[in-house]
Amino acid sequence: MRRPVTRELAGVEVAVVGVPYDSGTSYRSGTRFGPRKIREASLLLWGYNNALGIEPTKAINVVDYGDVDVIPPSITDTMQNIEAEVGAILEAGASVITLGGDHSISLPLLRAHAKRFGPLSVVHFDSHPDTWDTEFGGRKYSHGTPFRRALEEKLIKPEGYVQVGIRGSTSGPTDWQDARDMGVRVITMDEAAQMGVPAVINTVRELANGPTYVSLDIDAADPAFAPGTGTPEVGGFTSHQLLQLVRGLNGLDLVGFDLVEVSPPYDHGDITAILAANLAFEFLSLAALKRI
Amino acid sequence: MRRPVTRELAGVEVAVVGVPYDSGTSYRSGTRFGPRKIREASLLLWGYNNALGIEPTKAINVVDYGDVDVIPPSITDTMQNIEAEVGAILEAGASVITLGGDHSISLPLLRAHAKRFGPLSVVHFDSHPDTWDTEFGGRKYSHGTPFRRALEEKLIKPEGYVQVGIRGSTSGPTDWQDARDMGVRVITMDEAAQMGVPAVINTVRELANGPTYVSLDIDAADPAFAPGTGTPEVGGFTSHQLLQLVRGLNGLDLVGFDLVEVSPPYDHGDITAILAANLAFEFLSLAALKRI
Amino acid sequence: MRRPVTRELAGVEVAVVGVPYDSGTSYRSGTRFGPRKIREASLLLWGYNNALGIEPTKAINVVDYGDVDVIPPSITDTMQNIEAEVGAILEAGASVITLGGDHSISLPLLRAHAKRFGPLSVVHFDSHPDTWDTEFGGRKYSHGTPFRRALEEKLIKPEGYVQVGIRGSTSGPTDWQDARDMGVRVITMDEAAQMGVPAVINTVRELANGPTYVSLDIDAADPAFAPGTGTPEVGGFTSHQLLQLVRGLNGLDLVGFDLVEVSPPYDHGDITAILAANLAFEFLSLAALKRI
Amino acid sequence: MRRPVTRELAGVEVAVVGVPYDSGTSYRSGTRFGPRKIREASLLLWGYNNALGIEPTKAINVVDYGDVDVIPPSITDTMQNIEAEVGAILEAGASVITLGGDHSISLPLLRAHAKRFGPLSVVHFDSHPDTWDTEFGGRKYSHGTPFRRALEEKLIKPEGYVQVGIRGSTSGPTDWQDARDMGVRVITMDEAAQMGVPAVINTVRELANGPTYVSLDIDAADPAFAPGTGTPEVGGFTSHQLLQLVRGLNGLDLVGFDLVEVSPPYDHGDITAILAANLAFEFLSLAALKRI
Amino acid sequence: MRRPVTRELAGVEVAVVGVPYDSGTSYRSGTRFGPRKIREASLLLWGYNNALGIEPTKAINVVDYGDVDVIPPSITDTMQNIEAEVGAILEAGASVITLGGDHSISLPLLRAHAKRFGPLSVVHFDSHPDTWDTEFGGRKYSHGTPFRRALEEKLIKPEGYVQVGIRGSTSGPTDWQDARDMGVRVITMDEAAQMGVPAVINTVRELANGPTYVSLDIDAADPAFAPGTGTPEVGGFTSHQLLQLVRGLNGLDLVGFDLVEVSPPYDHGDITAILAANLAFEFLSLAALKRI
Amino acid sequence: MRRPVTRELAGVEVAVVGVPYDSGTSYRSGTRFGPRKIREASLLLWGYNNALGIEPTKAINVVDYGDVDVIPPSITDTMQNIEAEVGAILEAGASVITLGGDHSISLPLLRAHAKRFGPLSVVHFDSHPDTWDTEFGGRKYSHGTPFRRALEEKLIKPEGYVQVGIRGSTSGPTDWQDARDMGVRVITMDEAAQMGVPAVINTVRELANGPTYVSLDIDAADPAFAPGTGTPEVGGFTSHQLLQLVRGLNGLDLVGFDLVEVSPPYDHGDITAILAANLAFEFLSLAALKRI
Repeated sequence: MRRPVTRELAGVEVAVVGVPYDSGTSYRSGTRFGPRKIREASLLLWGYNNALGIEPTKAINVVDYGDVDVIPPSITDTMQNIEAEVGAILEAGASVITLGGDHSISLPLLRAHAKRFGPLSVVHFDSHPDTWDTEFGGRKYSHGTPFRRALEEKLIKPEGYVQVGIRGSTSGPTDWQDARDMGVRVITMDEAAQMGVPAVINTVRELANGPTYVSLDIDAADPAFAPGTGTPEVGGFTSHQLLQLVRGLNGLDLVGFDLVEVSPPYDHGDITAILAANLAFEFLSLAALKRI
Repeated sequence: MRRPVTRELAGVEVAVVGVPYDSGTSYRSGTRFGPRKIREASLLLWGYNNALGIEPTKAINVVDYGDVDVIPPSITDTMQNIEAEVGAILEAGASVITLGGDHSISLPLLRAHAKRFGPLSVVHFDSHPDTWDTEFGGRKYSHGTPFRRALEEKLIKPEGYVQVGIRGSTSGPTDWQDARDMGVRVITMDEAAQMGVPAVINTVRELANGPTYVSLDIDAADPAFAPGTGTPEVGGFTSHQLLQLVRGLNGLDLVGFDLVEVSPPYDHGDITAILAANLAFEFLSLAALKRI
Repeated sequence: MRRPVTRELAGVEVAVVGVPYDSGTSYRSGTRFGPRKIREASLLLWGYNNALGIEPTKAINVVDYGDVDVIPPSITDTMQNIEAEVGAILEAGASVITLGGDHSISLPLLRAHAKRFGPLSVVHFDSHPDTWDTEFGGRKYSHGTPFRRALEEKLIKPEGYVQVGIRGSTSGPTDWQDARDMGVRVITMDEAAQMGVPAVINTVRELANGPTYVSLDIDAADPAFAPGTGTPEVGGFTSHQLLQLVRGLNGLDLVGFDLVEVSPPYDHGDITAILAANLAFEFLSLAALKRI
Repeated sequence: MRRPVTRELAGVEVAVVGVPYDSGTSYRSGTRFGPRKIREASLLLWGYNNALGIEPTKAINVVDYGDVDVIPPSITDTMQNIEAEVGAILEAGASVITLGGDHSISLPLLRAHAKRFGPLSVVHFDSHPDTWDTEFGGRKYSHGTPFRRALEEKLIKPEGYVQVGIRGSTSGPTDWQDARDMGVRVITMDEAAQMGVPAVINTVRELANGPTYVSLDIDAADPAFAPGTGTPEVGGFTSHQLLQLVRGLNGLDLVGFDLVEVSPPYDHGDITAILAANLAFEFLSLAALKRI
Repeated sequence: MRRPVTRELAGVEVAVVGVPYDSGTSYRSGTRFGPRKIREASLLLWGYNNALGIEPTKAINVVDYGDVDVIPPSITDTMQNIEAEVGAILEAGASVITLGGDHSISLPLLRAHAKRFGPLSVVHFDSHPDTWDTEFGGRKYSHGTPFRRALEEKLIKPEGYVQVGIRGSTSGPTDWQDARDMGVRVITMDEAAQMGVPAVINTVRELANGPTYVSLDIDAADPAFAPGTGTPEVGGFTSHQLLQLVRGLNGLDLVGFDLVEVSPPYDHGDITAILAANLAFEFLSLAALKRI
Repeated sequence: MRRPVTRELAGVEVAVVGVPYDSGTSYRSGTRFGPRKIREASLLLWGYNNALGIEPTKAINVVDYGDVDVIPPSITDTMQNIEAEVGAILEAGASVITLGGDHSISLPLLRAHAKRFGPLSVVHFDSHPDTWDTEFGGRKYSHGTPFRRALEEKLIKPEGYVQVGIRGSTSGPTDWQDARDMGVRVITMDEAAQMGVPAVINTVRELANGPTYVSLDIDAADPAFAPGTGTPEVGGFTSHQLLQLVRGLNGLDLVGFDLVEVSPPYDHGDITAILAANLAFEFLSLAALKRI
């Protein structure tokens, strides 16, 4: 969106940060180019959000902070960098919209946000719960485990945590139940389709209270709308539904946002990146509405 | 659709005309190959339209007129050629279905049609209103301005002009209001989704009276259904909705049609061209139903 | 799905068989690589089917039988091979899920199944009825004719035969009526959209009685969801609708399945293959539910 | 090249004929779209051949005859159609340049030409000898066997038959020797690279005497230059070498040409089709030089 | 290459300027995205040029000036902007490397450079001479005519003008002779292949004297090496040859550079953009070597 | 090549092993799908190697061992797995041909081979020396450092280590000199082009003595021949040159092979995978020739 690229944080209200990391991925890699491509696709956007009635880049001070320094061969080093850099931005008083990268980056992001805002409500759009205990033969950190870790570390308030769009096959009958047993409200895709978008929004709004973090895995959308992703899952949301769901968060106490798993090598005609850029623009509009 | 390619107009009832022009485009070019690819995709079509109950190429005399001679480096020369060539076909008594090309071509098309039929009602499917005053730093002719020019030139009756599918971000809060202030009925995508397709059709039918021109920008469809276009806008119509909307025009006094902004270099599996060919087939069926 | 590749049939309950044949195709070829690509996409699947509540590969004994030996230059030789090889598997007491290949393979598959189970009910998801009499200038065997032949050969009980999703242009006003005149229940896409998915399921369940064969042409899905196919037809089902429709068959006396017309060269991001792998997984789950 | 499409043969000197058949293919299909795409790519060509000093479409009467009627499910029916249609054109006194399609079509083409001109010398550019005895488990007709059949049927004079560019792995040590044992001069790619292009041309010119037919399989080119083909073979000719080789045939008694195995679904940026169109233009120039 | 983006010219020695204009194109458009993609591909480059022994961004002060403001619908307005903006940079004492865009932009670039340096020698790598008199039915400005105009306007010294790589079919026997008749030295691709790269370099160095401008159309490379271009021409240079040719210019009095006709929509794996970025890096190294 | 997939090593002479790891990559990821795609492309290969005169799968006992278990988020865990699994195969007396994956995997491979065979001669085809000290801000393990580590760990005999094809820009003037200072013979691409392939082969054969390991980074080939790779470098070898170079190793005491950096998401028409499969077939033939 042609925002200035700067690391000067004085007066900044929202910083857009890229995390080009994809070594936490179990299937297709390529999300390391997600931040670059989403930024490029954002050139298609104009400034005024008609649905939410705001021109965020005029209403508040937004900058493109550039990318966090990632270390592909080491997830632990990368997580430290993310937590440190994003933590510093939050300390400076700005909100952060993070563009991934694979979903493993949400753990250090939640750490940084919880450190500043305390335990968080989380609205999590995804086709997978990402609450496995371990992946890759016992490893605790990957793109399948961040929310389990975050619950264990008490970064998330379970009763304020809602997952939307979960679907597909699982490793066994308890994968989704595991999340529910931890106190998470899991709205599967089938439930969401049955309830309709407005009812889903109402449920989310009832659950998310206090400082709320939003994490959106682009594979919440159906592969027809978002082919460029690591682990596509058929039977998902349309782009229109996803836009409505995100806009429905307006008014919550939103303190942070991430948008992950955009994988340009598997995209075509840039439609995934364009959808992601639009969703990031909705995030930006929500952040602006909260600050004005 | 394997129609004879000819410029002989005696007895012709509908001429399909290509305008391979894309220099009016603000973002992705490539629509210059739209006419060729839509024709190729039309080879997939059979002759009988089950939804409308007609076999248009048997019911009336249809020809492929070939392409208008375009001048990429000059929009004014190109517009003159379009108006002159299409005007001559209309003079000969045939109806024209034009395959673009970018949306700037609608202005000379409207000029040619208004010259023959008087001020027109217009049904305009699009994600963008294309009623900007200027683009590219003050230029009056581009793919963002044709309908503003057409209203100024009184080619269009504002009260008979309805836009369907408008959505996305804009340069400011007044972009859509501008069109409304000129008397245009703007049905945004969000309104259309709320109303449902049958109600949209009813609204259109109430407004469009007298000689009616149909302009369809393929970006009215969601990028999942039409990735091959210049300025894709997420959150749009499905192909099924778009087919229903076009068929809903049956019975109006339809005098002309254009289908624009198909950009093959950004298409894949030809799905955009195939959708466009089907929509053009619906246009042809509507034209045939009016003439029999 | 990482099943063992074997031709040993002792104790096998379901065999997945590939038929990489595409010479019966009228438009785009390439379905010869369908079986390979669907198998590869199945690596994305986990074992447990949450919607149907079963882990089929644990519940029953499933093997990957590999591919039938096909003869691209000769459809009759190929049909003989298919009927013989699949017939032998059925004789051994296993059920077969066949991955195509073009739709001409359904005729020998129906022959093999009818030989074992008697005349069949058929649930046929498709955009085309495939009940032409001849194609390619009088040829009786192709991907446009298998169900006409099967009706003539009394492999199918007409009153138990239902087609779902039929749409698009046809060679004349009688194409769909022809099928109806043979006693087939044709639920067009427009009817299905009007009825809603649950009502379609009910209709299917009322009609299909006794041993029932399921044939799914991936072009039942809209090209946005399944671009990788031979004769894409716009205005089709979403992936979510198709999954629901297939799951709705649970409880019928399902004796065989095929999934055809996946053409990888026209796919992108593998979304068609992934959808097909998911649908095949639903078939497998249905087969398992019937056997336990 | 914008030549008139016609089946009127009076006065025609060269007819360009398409054979969109790909069921003789062992690996990737898709060559059925070769003729269409090569024609489209020929729009990039201008009329004058600087290397050979002739403007063929002005020097002689050239038409686009359109496509032979092919029957994908039956190679024997297809071969009959090819032989009959091309035979009729030759009878009318025109030369034929055939655009394939897979290499199995060369057999009926050689039959038609030998019927008119007697046993032929053949210059055959290819990475594979295509002189297998059988393929697909004993079948005599496929894209791996046409030249064996043609030798057996004495359509080709073995001593006037030269293969250029043969390379890659084979089913055994005798594949190439088999051809040599039949009297064919096999210039492998490694030999050609060692000899240099001018020496290869000299050898070809010494061998080819009397009426000479040219068959060019696009996989003679390296996959970098011609990725869009059925069975790509690395280590091949550059486009510059191939153009030189073809031009080097000027002066021979050239009576027929085919260019086969262009498979658009595997092409990108149309580079294979553009190379093929250029090679066909060289054929046309050679045909014209012979007739003037 | 991660150079600062700035329009401050104080102390700047080389400015890289983009001209995203493609309305002068006769065939494939898309070069409007050339500058963006070449910049992105330049991220792959490291700073030190081993062949020329210089690290240009350390040796001299290089900036990314961003893009000239282009007006797609009007070539004359666009040419004025180019001449004015680049002229201002030259006035400020910096050298300019321009990334196109189509080849029509070379005319205003030559105007700006000739205004500052007087009549220019030109080294022009291309497959087409671009010295037509008119294109698009009489238009004087397009991507086929800039060098004719530049010769007429005496921006170029004919005796110092050498074209390298010319090939392909032409509109008639005089296209290349026309250039020669104007005094230009035309080294066709066939000549270059015969002479060898070192001899071509020697010829160029003998001819180019005084202030010398370098214009490189990426279609000088073979389509295998540069598929992403508007009018690909088979039989061209390899990337290795092209790099050698450009490096061979070291020591000439080089005053300006352009690199045009990179069309990303037709590229794949970004290989054309990567080649272009490397060639631009050679230009930068040459510019640096001249200034130190 | 349809070899049996097994982990039984009794009697095995060559095991083909995949290492689908790409987290050591600095630019494009995606090489994790290299092993799968190279295996798929190997289906195009026939068994007999005409250039080397051997049918390796008949001459010796070859198996497909499958993939090493990799841990994307941790390079150190992954390296341990590689060293352990490959070490066990070597212990069992088999030779290993490893398909990567990124180049970081060569370090554990060299460790395993040196453990069994002592310090190794290495023939290393690549465009980059991969002898950096650190990458990613001080990390010692990545795809840019394995050969530095291997030299430090004395796994490689410097005087027996030759690099072929080095080219492109570097971080400074000493990158290549660093390797030379460690005693490595660096044959740059420019030198190789000047020397010619036979002279390069002779130099390699003079240097490599005793047990020799071959490491081939597919980016040794020009991007036109191998677009599907992580860090493409223009100006490289043709496929024909690369085949000749590899065959030229016949007769050396070859004890191990790897082929790395094939990245399918950036490939097209599978040409990179097909080239890689052919090169692996040459490796297999060399291994067979050594054992018989």
